[in-house]
Amino acid sequence: MTTRMIVLNGGSSSGKSGIARCLQAVLPDPWLTFGVDTLIEAMPTSMQESDAGIEIAPDGEVIVGPGFRTLESAWIEGVAAMARAGAGVIVDEVFLGGAESQRRWQQALGGLGVLWVGVRCESAVAAAREIARGDRITGMAAAQADMVHQGVFYDLEVDTTRSESLECARIIADRVK
Amino acid sequence: MTTRMIVLNGGSSSGKSGIARCLQAVLPDPWLTFGVDTLIEAMPTSMQESDAGIEIAPDGEVIVGPGFRTLESAWIEGVAAMARAGAGVIVDEVFLGGAESQRRWQQALGGLGVLWVGVRCESAVAAAREIARGDRITGMAAAQADMVHQGVFYDLEVDTTRSESLECARIIADRVK
Amino acid sequence: MTTRMIVLNGGSSSGKSGIARCLQAVLPDPWLTFGVDTLIEAMPTSMQESDAGIEIAPDGEVIVGPGFRTLESAWIEGVAAMARAGAGVIVDEVFLGGAESQRRWQQALGGLGVLWVGVRCESAVAAAREIARGDRITGMAAAQADMVHQGVFYDLEVDTTRSESLECARIIADRVK
Amino acid sequence: MTTRMIVLNGGSSSGKSGIARCLQAVLPDPWLTFGVDTLIEAMPTSMQESDAGIEIAPDGEVIVGPGFRTLESAWIEGVAAMARAGAGVIVDEVFLGGAESQRRWQQALGGLGVLWVGVRCESAVAAAREIARGDRITGMAAAQADMVHQGVFYDLEVDTTRSESLECARIIADRVK
Repeated sequence: MTTRMIVLNGGSSSGKSGIARCLQAVLPDPWLTFGVDTLIEAMPTSMQESDAGIEIAPDGEVIVGPGFRTLESAWIEGVAAMARAGAGVIVDEVFLGGAESQRRWQQALGGLGVLWVGVRCESAVAAAREIARGDRITGMAAAQADMVHQGVFYDLEVDTTRSESLECARIIADRVK
Repeated sequence: MTTRMIVLNGGSSSGKSGIARCLQAVLPDPWLTFGVDTLIEAMPTSMQESDAGIEIAPDGEVIVGPGFRTLESAWIEGVAAMARAGAGVIVDEVFLGGAESQRRWQQALGGLGVLWVGVRCESAVAAAREIARGDRITGMAAAQADMVHQGVFYDLEVDTTRSESLECARIIADRVK
Repeated sequence: MTTRMIVLNGGSSSGKSGIARCLQAVLPDPWLTFGVDTLIEAMPTSMQESDAGIEIAPDGEVIVGPGFRTLESAWIEGVAAMARAGAGVIVDEVFLGGAESQRRWQQALGGLGVLWVGVRCESAVAAAREIARGDRITGMAAAQADMVHQGVFYDLEVDTTRSESLECARIIADRVK
Repeated sequence: MTTRMIVLNGGSSSGKSGIARCLQAVLPDPWLTFGVDTLIEAMPTSMQESDAGIEIAPDGEVIVGPGFRTLESAWIEGVAAMARAGAGVIVDEVFLGGAESQRRWQQALGGLGVLWVGVRCESAVAAAREIARGDRITGMAAAQADMVHQGVFYDLEVDTTRSESLECARIIADRVK
């Protein structure tokens, strides 16, 4: 089955968005790429820090409310429809709920050729990169490093701890059919 | 029919994105909002200035290549699917092809309750706001002010020349069913 | 005395940065423009929300700590030195302490030709524009609208409630010697 | 002599700004950090792509006009004045003119304790990171990798090819007096 979608899952600062940009550069056809940030920016600003939307605890934990889930569910359906309509789509995700988060995507992607990719990065290195990026909220990289992979199935995994995004992208691109 | 989508069409610097943010604030339910910029940022960076993608002429005219159309078409299908899946969606668009651009959206939105809104702004005022925003490329506001409305059908029109975004948003919200 | 610096003071969402961009476009020589945001981005991210740095209360009030003052004081000296070295400099400021904030700048600007400009905007309109900009933190526009002008001396005042940034910039530029 | 300024010099995508953010996190006192981008954003947008300002050739070479030099010179004086006024300042620079660029800073920094740091990155790795960042203009990383170091004197050099920004920052911080 032709690969229509690449789902990159990894914690904050694991290097997903860099891999996504490199994938767009090395894949022969033009692919679209969307991240969790695309969805968050599309939401009402009032939901970006409220009980209905997203809340970030002082230790970097992300808590997601019911209003968020409703919009996220429609977003997932829409991204799946883009792939069905013929565009290659790279999704850059943070499976805060592990296997349960993957299940939400799987339900929408039925019948599509999907490549599931785990993006690993050693917790200490991800935390160091979080500091280098100058994010105001710190602690997310460490909090999410292992959590997001729990119970998740992958076609392949890459590790950015000692590999550049471009190398990881080439390994992934080789698996695209 | 319940309104599931609001399409705001207007030239660059006409005030569409401000109206979209205000609509999200005044509408009782949470709506998603997407603009042309969301699509452009999702594309490979190599397409952002190439023959296959988008090119901006020195006078501010935007030229769109065949590669752009393919991804845009999938994007439109996907946004329509989000509305079908139950999310209210505000689209902030620039119909560079006038009626022809609207037709592309209409084909994808069949069966959905859509509110078509024209966002007008006097050309000189839009050009002044373009300077105030500090965009590197100038001339787009003047070039697009009238062009994008040619042959386009609207349910209602608003004018930001002398009205704030929030007032325009309230007028539009009153028409949402 | 030749004008070497233009200080724009106004509350959040009063339109200062738009006027600054327009001033750069209409003034015959190239001028530099800096805002409070330039300073904040230059600070350690840890100070951007801490007791030593800046804190934003739930009602939009901005509280500034002693660590902020030390860096701000050096920043002001540096910006004054740029004007002394021959560059025209536009400063886009929020005098949270009113006359006391102005005094801090005056001490550094001794001997320089300065044009002090008050940027007014009706509180309700500024609050509406804050919503249109989609800022996550709301309430700052209303909280600051009058406060920042208390006891401040101006060479001229402009009002963006019903005037475009470019018109205001032209009025200011006419006063530059 | 107490270190008042750290000048990081390296090509595009060599990792300077990440090191600057990490330095702010590891140094005991609060330091300000400024980059070439701070200056460019402060300039009139009309200068950002014109003969008087900056031009970027198709191969990524950056050409700087006389108007740029005038403002840059005032900027350098101002940043030096911030350090003299008591703030620690990290400067993140690209010495396009090699030794000649360094000389411009040296003239302004007389009498100040300065730590000159060369930030190296293998050309191929910097080019790969440029792709991962999704910059629209590519080729700058490769074009600048060696050029910016020609004839420049350093107190120490770090290499980001195989070291994280945080490790490099710690090495630099150990040399701050």
